[in-house]
Amino acid sequence: MSIEEKYKINKEITINDIARELNVSKSTVSRALQDHYSIGEKTKEAVRQLAEKYNYNPNTIAASLFKKSTQTIGVIVPILSHYFFSTVIAGIEDTAYKAGYKVIICQSNESYEREVIVAKTLLSARVDGVIASISRETNDAAHFKIFNTKNIPLVFFDRLPGGIKSASVSVDDQAGAFKVVEHLIRQGHKTIAHFAGPQHITLAQNRLQGYKDALKKYKIPFKKELVYDCGFERQQGIDTAKRLLQQAHLPDAIFAVCDPVAIGTMLALKEQGIRIPEQIAVAGFNDDPTATVIEPALTTVAQPAFEIGQAAANIFLKQIKQSRKKIINEVLQTTLVVRKSG
Amino acid sequence: MSIEEKYKINKEITINDIARELNVSKSTVSRALQDHYSIGEKTKEAVRQLAEKYNYNPNTIAASLFKKSTQTIGVIVPILSHYFFSTVIAGIEDTAYKAGYKVIICQSNESYEREVIVAKTLLSARVDGVIASISRETNDAAHFKIFNTKNIPLVFFDRLPGGIKSASVSVDDQAGAFKVVEHLIRQGHKTIAHFAGPQHITLAQNRLQGYKDALKKYKIPFKKELVYDCGFERQQGIDTAKRLLQQAHLPDAIFAVCDPVAIGTMLALKEQGIRIPEQIAVAGFNDDPTATVIEPALTTVAQPAFEIGQAAANIFLKQIKQSRKKIINEVLQTTLVVRKSG
Repeated sequence: MSIEEKYKINKEITINDIARELNVSKSTVSRALQDHYSIGEKTKEAVRQLAEKYNYNPNTIAASLFKKSTQTIGVIVPILSHYFFSTVIAGIEDTAYKAGYKVIICQSNESYEREVIVAKTLLSARVDGVIASISRETNDAAHFKIFNTKNIPLVFFDRLPGGIKSASVSVDDQAGAFKVVEHLIRQGHKTIAHFAGPQHITLAQNRLQGYKDALKKYKIPFKKELVYDCGFERQQGIDTAKRLLQQAHLPDAIFAVCDPVAIGTMLALKEQGIRIPEQIAVAGFNDDPTATVIEPALTTVAQPAFEIGQAAANIFLKQIKQSRKKIINEVLQTTLVVRKSG
Repeated sequence: MSIEEKYKINKEITINDIARELNVSKSTVSRALQDHYSIGEKTKEAVRQLAEKYNYNPNTIAASLFKKSTQTIGVIVPILSHYFFSTVIAGIEDTAYKAGYKVIICQSNESYEREVIVAKTLLSARVDGVIASISRETNDAAHFKIFNTKNIPLVFFDRLPGGIKSASVSVDDQAGAFKVVEHLIRQGHKTIAHFAGPQHITLAQNRLQGYKDALKKYKIPFKKELVYDCGFERQQGIDTAKRLLQQAHLPDAIFAVCDPVAIGTMLALKEQGIRIPEQIAVAGFNDDPTATVIEPALTTVAQPAFEIGQAAANIFLKQIKQSRKKIINEVLQTTLVVRKSG
């Protein structure tokens, strides 16, 4: 029976059918589908054409030949205790479980070393794909390259590493930061400090850039000394606010890199009896649930965390069906949420 | 060489040595160590005695014979977005990674069905042990029994299921609830409502019991209508407070089953212009970071979440070395944290 006839009958083609049709071995076909270096471009192209024509599911093929699919997605996050990350995970799970995939999660705990270990752990657990956000220590994405080599879908979100070609989902951090700083400027603030995240992390760079863009648009000179090195934790917000309060001239507003830092900043200012926003306005980024608990309620930039998770899982679901993974880089938009703090 | 001599020389005994010493087959020894039904009690006892005498590590034995140890602990939590659970995980990881174990985490998302799936997922991932807290829907622990059958260490924490013999780590919820309700009574409150958790979950029962104990000690009659069915989420606290506010007679204090519920309660009361604690005092349970953000700061019961995680991992580390797992049920103490809300 020709491949054409078989396809018409049951719509399911085995790797054998492709091999017979092209008069090559089964292992040539599977290696071609895996983009193996040992197979010539011409053969690869022929295999791919047939695979696409007859709607081959290379995952099923790979599963039957090389490994059993575990129907599992591995997720790596830097810190589980951040509402943003647990909400992204909820979004990933929402999409994954509906599609019949299970989700296992590892935490790097903001440690590069731990991230290398958990990446290996997920590989050993034979996950079908990885969705990851890197630790604040991670400069080098070499430990993720094995997933590309093995043709395992890899999707980064939020904190994306440099030096690796991979799918990703992020928000337009630069535009989000621009919006909130523009809002502070329009409220009449002129000396706006920024508590910045680690600058080797793209999102931290982009939020700083958005801050600069807004200043530029409103012709406010950028001053280096108003940018404070900070992290992503509440305690770092408290500590940075205390450093700022030792300065002779205080700013009239602070834009914090994320809500935990903004909350820490507000707690430190309130402790010193500084009125928010009258003396110093404060704005954050994330829209954590704590933003509506603190008084005054926090002005911030809402990120669609659940949707980020769904989008990352959807990219995985597309890639798992592609023998040649299409690199998708999705950028979602943020929303300015004006409350009382600035 | 006798087993005695070999032990004196290198302190490491193989399963072969036990088999030779008892004049049985290797597979009899390994099945005896696994408490297999096909092996008689007398043989099992003889194998266990030798194993204990010569400090056998049954895990190493099992690893060499049956399966490769993955050096991985699987963790199941109901909701990752609760600070309590992410902190327990941090404690588990702290102990586990130091001992050379990796940690993979699954979320049941408070769903029984999902919990059954993730238990299977961890089994397939060949974890060396499981540390779990059950979902609010879980009435039946049958899906965990497979771990006992396979002699895989299983430790429950915080929310323990009935109907299964297993190690556990919990806090003395009854004593904790007693302490905080006693505190409210000593502050002069006489009509104290309780926003209770689902009563098939032991911790919710115990916190209700602690509430009753305190009323009894101070000769305040228990009134059923002051106990409100609630869950563990902020939104449920908001909804339950709104129900309470429709009553003709309001209580002068509310003891909420956990901090997210207490925070929701305070937000709902504040929205109605009710002064806390002057009109209604509020107390929680957990000591989440939000407790110090809300105004007035929340009076609550601090649970040693990180230590709970460490204790659970330590029980795992003990059990993994025991052919016959010793059932340890550890109960940690709580601390009353008096702030401004009650």
